[in-house]
Amino acid sequence: MSTTNRQVRLAARPVGLPKRSDWNFTEEAAGDPPDGQMLVKVTHLSLDPAMRGWMNDGKSYIRPVAIGEVMRAGGAGKVVASKHPDYRVGDEVAGNFGVQQYALSDGKGVRKVDTRFAPLTTYLGALGMPGMTAYFGLLDIGKPKAGETVVVSGAAGAVGSVVGQIAKIKGCRVIGIAGGADKCRYLTEKLHFDAAIDYKSEDVKAGLKTHCPDGIHVYFDNVGGEILEAALGRIALHARIVICGAISQYNSTTPPKGPANYLSLLVNRASMTGMIVFDYADRYNEGGREMAQWIAAGKLVTKEDVVEGGIDAFPETLLKLFKGENFGKLVLAL
Amino acid sequence: MSTTNRQVRLAARPVGLPKRSDWNFTEEAAGDPPDGQMLVKVTHLSLDPAMRGWMNDGKSYIRPVAIGEVMRAGGAGKVVASKHPDYRVGDEVAGNFGVQQYALSDGKGVRKVDTRFAPLTTYLGALGMPGMTAYFGLLDIGKPKAGETVVVSGAAGAVGSVVGQIAKIKGCRVIGIAGGADKCRYLTEKLHFDAAIDYKSEDVKAGLKTHCPDGIHVYFDNVGGEILEAALGRIALHARIVICGAISQYNSTTPPKGPANYLSLLVNRASMTGMIVFDYADRYNEGGREMAQWIAAGKLVTKEDVVEGGIDAFPETLLKLFKGENFGKLVLAL
Repeated sequence: MSTTNRQVRLAARPVGLPKRSDWNFTEEAAGDPPDGQMLVKVTHLSLDPAMRGWMNDGKSYIRPVAIGEVMRAGGAGKVVASKHPDYRVGDEVAGNFGVQQYALSDGKGVRKVDTRFAPLTTYLGALGMPGMTAYFGLLDIGKPKAGETVVVSGAAGAVGSVVGQIAKIKGCRVIGIAGGADKCRYLTEKLHFDAAIDYKSEDVKAGLKTHCPDGIHVYFDNVGGEILEAALGRIALHARIVICGAISQYNSTTPPKGPANYLSLLVNRASMTGMIVFDYADRYNEGGREMAQWIAAGKLVTKEDVVEGGIDAFPETLLKLFKGENFGKLVLAL
Repeated sequence: MSTTNRQVRLAARPVGLPKRSDWNFTEEAAGDPPDGQMLVKVTHLSLDPAMRGWMNDGKSYIRPVAIGEVMRAGGAGKVVASKHPDYRVGDEVAGNFGVQQYALSDGKGVRKVDTRFAPLTTYLGALGMPGMTAYFGLLDIGKPKAGETVVVSGAAGAVGSVVGQIAKIKGCRVIGIAGGADKCRYLTEKLHFDAAIDYKSEDVKAGLKTHCPDGIHVYFDNVGGEILEAALGRIALHARIVICGAISQYNSTTPPKGPANYLSLLVNRASMTGMIVFDYADRYNEGGREMAQWIAAGKLVTKEDVVEGGIDAFPETLLKLFKGENFGKLVLAL
């Protein structure tokens, strides 16, 4: 085969927001798969806030992407050549294919998807890692009970929008925090959140006071910073805070700010617990099955923000996440 | 009765360390108990870090002490007059008697103590609130397993010294953080901690690296601030942090500092949970029974720092807590 595979490699460790010069574009031949492998044509890349963390050096929950390495990313596409016993040409798949047009894979971490049920992009969103993050983070760590008040930040994003909808399914009052009137209207009108707070135009603290008269029982945090503090200041007794991310801090060039009022955990006998979706890998089927049922029943609305930009648009498209410009799960169509 | 009862009342809400002018000394007659009450001669006052929080206005886990009110404090003493069916003159009791020489009580929150088993002061320490705090905080929230590494700050204090010893009883490796060589020597030589870090002369971060090669599984925090950050930076996967107090922050006149590296909770899928001993009131008997057995068996060593100062020494004696000058449970003998 002489198909060209265009790739995006990490050229430098970014300081602050990743710049175009932090990336290298390379081309190589998309090789024939050896025995036991397949070649996937990647049609959609998953762009996720966590990717920013993978670019940093230092010990974390996953090894950093090395300088010169193809950037790690989830993606979806179609098998175009296979010497893998379980995959045939034409199979549609999702997996960790990296920021490139073609990926060789031995099938590890890859799953077949059924685009008759949902579009390919949904398998990068509600039926992919963000959906699993929402499902296990909310239900296993947050443990919401019917009648409780659940607050989620980054509420119009890939994870947050699913968190809020699952909380509604479980009988909770749900307040979403998002940036902009459009997103807030979407949360209350389309996703049936009980209220939304626009952090760009409203005082989040005051909003939480208004909408959470009995305090917050579960706070699902995707953003960190001042919004985490505002939520901590409003938690109810025995509240559970799920630390899923801190997008407000990822590109900070000053030392990150810790929540100054963390002693609210003491006063309220509350907990703050971190979660990483990979820990639930052996339960993805369980989560995926239930989420698919909710989607089929119309209880869970999915939304992907698909940018038709091709691989060269990767650097700029990724930044939409950190500027709050995506609306739903951000996907780059190649 | 014409016995004079000297009292210490809160005169002003302190800014920073409480000054003598934040207190009022008053005298009134220690009245005869009405039906259903008793009069207790308070011989020992319990001085606890939490008292600093009770002096502040604002919503907390307990209502603030009002200006002009006798300062809230635990204490122990002897019944000197009784019209209470369950108490007789001569009974030795512990309870929330306030900073005064005599207290009228209807018996609520009062318990009889047996000074044949342990001195009265121990019922303010290991067999009192600090002991219960250690017992339930470590076992119920920290959930240490044999072989795990437990780190405790304020380790030579009333709570910390018991936390570390219970962790040893449960088969853990125990590292204490305390201020000064004497305290550290006491921890390793008398209480059989595996190691002690002197925060006044050592780099706590480096010490934790040396003594916790596999990370910290349970961190019991009494101090907050930089030591909490150092511990967060060294936690193991699925670590449990118990937030019991933050004595380094209580007298701060600048906004408290949150742990800048709280995302270590995410990276390590760890939790940070606040606890208040009062929540375990219905289980004090359970805790007290087991602690008494450990004391009787010589497995739990108790230590009280008894200041023979009388009630007029209350303002200055309280400050020993915040200057790290107490060594064991701080008690003021009246």
